[in-house]
Amino acid sequence: MNRRKFLKSGGIAALGTTLYTSATGQAANWFATDEGLTNQVKNIIFLVSDGMSIGTLNMANLYSERILGKTTKWIELYQQNKVSRGLMDMASASSIVTDSAAASSSWGSGYRVKNGSINVSVDNENLSPIWDKFKKAGKKVGCVTTVPITHATPAGFTVSIKSRNDQSKIAEEYLRYGYDVLLGGGDKYFNASHRKDKKDMYQSFRNASYNVVRSKNELMKISGSQKLLGVFDYDALPYQIDRENDTDLQKTIPSLADMTQKAIENLSQHPGGFVLQVESGKVDWAAHANDIAGLIHEQLQFDKAVEVAINYAEQRNDTLVIITTDHGNANPGVIYGKYADSNFDSIAHYKKSNELFLNSITSDWNEKKLSEYTQHQLGIDLNHEDASHVLRYYQGLEKEEDGLYNYRKLPYKTFADIQQKTDSVGWISMDHSADYVEIAMFGAGKEKLAPFIKNTDLHWFMLHVTGLKQD
Amino acid sequence: MNRRKFLKSGGIAALGTTLYTSATGQAANWFATDEGLTNQVKNIIFLVSDGMSIGTLNMANLYSERILGKTTKWIELYQQNKVSRGLMDMASASSIVTDSAAASSSWGSGYRVKNGSINVSVDNENLSPIWDKFKKAGKKVGCVTTVPITHATPAGFTVSIKSRNDQSKIAEEYLRYGYDVLLGGGDKYFNASHRKDKKDMYQSFRNASYNVVRSKNELMKISGSQKLLGVFDYDALPYQIDRENDTDLQKTIPSLADMTQKAIENLSQHPGGFVLQVESGKVDWAAHANDIAGLIHEQLQFDKAVEVAINYAEQRNDTLVIITTDHGNANPGVIYGKYADSNFDSIAHYKKSNELFLNSITSDWNEKKLSEYTQHQLGIDLNHEDASHVLRYYQGLEKEEDGLYNYRKLPYKTFADIQQKTDSVGWISMDHSADYVEIAMFGAGKEKLAPFIKNTDLHWFMLHVTGLKQD
Repeated sequence: MNRRKFLKSGGIAALGTTLYTSATGQAANWFATDEGLTNQVKNIIFLVSDGMSIGTLNMANLYSERILGKTTKWIELYQQNKVSRGLMDMASASSIVTDSAAASSSWGSGYRVKNGSINVSVDNENLSPIWDKFKKAGKKVGCVTTVPITHATPAGFTVSIKSRNDQSKIAEEYLRYGYDVLLGGGDKYFNASHRKDKKDMYQSFRNASYNVVRSKNELMKISGSQKLLGVFDYDALPYQIDRENDTDLQKTIPSLADMTQKAIENLSQHPGGFVLQVESGKVDWAAHANDIAGLIHEQLQFDKAVEVAINYAEQRNDTLVIITTDHGNANPGVIYGKYADSNFDSIAHYKKSNELFLNSITSDWNEKKLSEYTQHQLGIDLNHEDASHVLRYYQGLEKEEDGLYNYRKLPYKTFADIQQKTDSVGWISMDHSADYVEIAMFGAGKEKLAPFIKNTDLHWFMLHVTGLKQD
Repeated sequence: MNRRKFLKSGGIAALGTTLYTSATGQAANWFATDEGLTNQVKNIIFLVSDGMSIGTLNMANLYSERILGKTTKWIELYQQNKVSRGLMDMASASSIVTDSAAASSSWGSGYRVKNGSINVSVDNENLSPIWDKFKKAGKKVGCVTTVPITHATPAGFTVSIKSRNDQSKIAEEYLRYGYDVLLGGGDKYFNASHRKDKKDMYQSFRNASYNVVRSKNELMKISGSQKLLGVFDYDALPYQIDRENDTDLQKTIPSLADMTQKAIENLSQHPGGFVLQVESGKVDWAAHANDIAGLIHEQLQFDKAVEVAINYAEQRNDTLVIITTDHGNANPGVIYGKYADSNFDSIAHYKKSNELFLNSITSDWNEKKLSEYTQHQLGIDLNHEDASHVLRYYQGLEKEEDGLYNYRKLPYKTFADIQQKTDSVGWISMDHSADYVEIAMFGAGKEKLAPFIKNTDLHWFMLHVTGLKQD
């Protein structure tokens, strides 16, 4: 299966008779005709807000309208009737609730795989990743993300590997495939001093004629279309809210919109067209942490990347922009109540992600110090009970919380419960949900989106509208 | 404002120049042209699953596919590309999180009103309810619901009244307006022996030439197009799951699909057309109770009513079917985990709503009795700690829970937390959320739905596509 060869079709007319088959064997024929396809797609920009429940989209727009005085780009595209919309079923081969590896692989390979694996089928076959199909067809390809560039979502479009956790190997695979633009975090998987095998992946990329950049400053100076690797932090990039409140970080760490802009500038110089995945990985991490300010500011930054993509596609008739998410996470929402509105608005006073806030507290703090800090950083008046509850975690008197990406065992859930009393935001859990997800399309090919699709359909959709087909 | 007179337009050509204005003053011109409107709408069937978060739609379909072996009608309509879809902003005049009264009023009057009031503006003006506008324009009108027929959602299309709680008065208003078909619960607001004023509303309706029916048996015998009032229970009708497991209830209480079928049979005999609201009110009540089996079975029954409506509309080219909800509630979802699938499937063993289950327990039960009952009725093995926790509520040793519709102060939240351990379903709260909601349209006029609308737009939309306009 991994040896299938994809050829650029001679024209869309040749595709009309091709019916792609989804993983269940059901003909996905809703898009596999050329009826209604007005322009063949040359470029695809695929934007994924990782782990975005519908409430995240809702709260980001509420925050934007109420606090910032403007509608988000995503919702504005809806209001202006500029996009087609669908719901998407993201189940994996192993569960109705997917992880990001299986989710991205479903788009990346056209098949449902088990949670945790990347483009390796349930029968242990390597499945060809879609960005490699496009590369072989002559397009330039890229990925940008706010988490390690070797993380599950970019990897799902680019490599085939048994375990998503093998990120050092994924870094090597990127070089082997020769992808054109790779921007994100993950120094620990490239840097000789952090890798177990002590390989200097940066040097290996340079040897293969990549520009390698390590800061926003370096990134912004780059022009031209040379291959580009940008790694801007040890693991994930900082939360956008923390970047916004730290002028040093603003200089060293590019935003998702910055990276998207630079990736498009680079890739779009290629006459054969390009495909680019843009992931806001930390929307998912914020949901895992039940961190509402982290979540909203991250989603708003994703929205800026959407705007960058739309600004590019609006000038042309050959670019498809896909805007979606890979699964719900924690299903947050504003809860009904007398003070729901003012409580929600109080999130504007939060100056830090909960990660940074909780990381600042040490075991020698007393209640007074914690209360003053909480009031100053978040505008929240902690009562005695809550303050002492939080401090007990640092004094080793409460059972440590765990959870994905909670490396320092911070009391995320306890703190979200405290915040709920004054911000009226609730969460069902600290993990993914089975909810069907929102998908929107803008530009060339958007008219082929059906109101309800399976994740795997999207793989064949992208091949079809660009005129690629299987032998 | 309430004295505005609506006239049937001479034809759609006359409407092309009319721009309706939404409550914010923004021209809602996306539908107020006739461009793309293929057929003028004669009939509207407006189906509302009250308090349906996107996770409710998702879980009902998962349950239907995994346990019953078929896709729900709602999702099938999406898969078959038979509907248009949008997201709808349901905020009220008083909050970003609406209640059902303000939600239905936004559709019913075209204006946002404060939570709790029904078609009374923020300036205390009575706003004309949309079903009365249609009645005056010569159409037959009706409402059916699984909660009292005098409840907020039907009332929002039919009356103007300061407080949703004044349901005895709403029953009188229905008679004054002379609506054609009214089917649901709420005997306490019609029956002389339950009303404070001892008025016999049933007799008053009979005096006005209504057929009055009080059981499924009586309802099913009715034919013809005489005005019809059917009241089938003291307050809300029983949960669908409890009806399914009780052959007596099946004889006395009609299902939502039964009532929808009879309402369409009656109203559709009128040559001038009809408008009908169909509400599954107990989807909302189940979400308030965090009752997953109650919720799923209620949503599946709503889906059967959708099917009845579609079956009618599919045979014609003059009927618009609107399928939506008025707000999220509790944002339930299946949570990621090793056993997420089998845990979710265990809901198939639940034979009772949590309301009926918890109502059966009495203070003299011991742990053994409770555990056996729980195993038998729900397939759940209660551990010692959970069993004693539940019993303490009945022994007066725990603080009573409250919450909307929790008349008997049952331990709904405690029990949902226990169930979550084996069914993997989480809830953010026991109340409404601010989430944007799903709306779908089928049949004549569906092509005029935009991807994102305000609740108030829908009022003017219905007037426009049917050819009604303001003087």
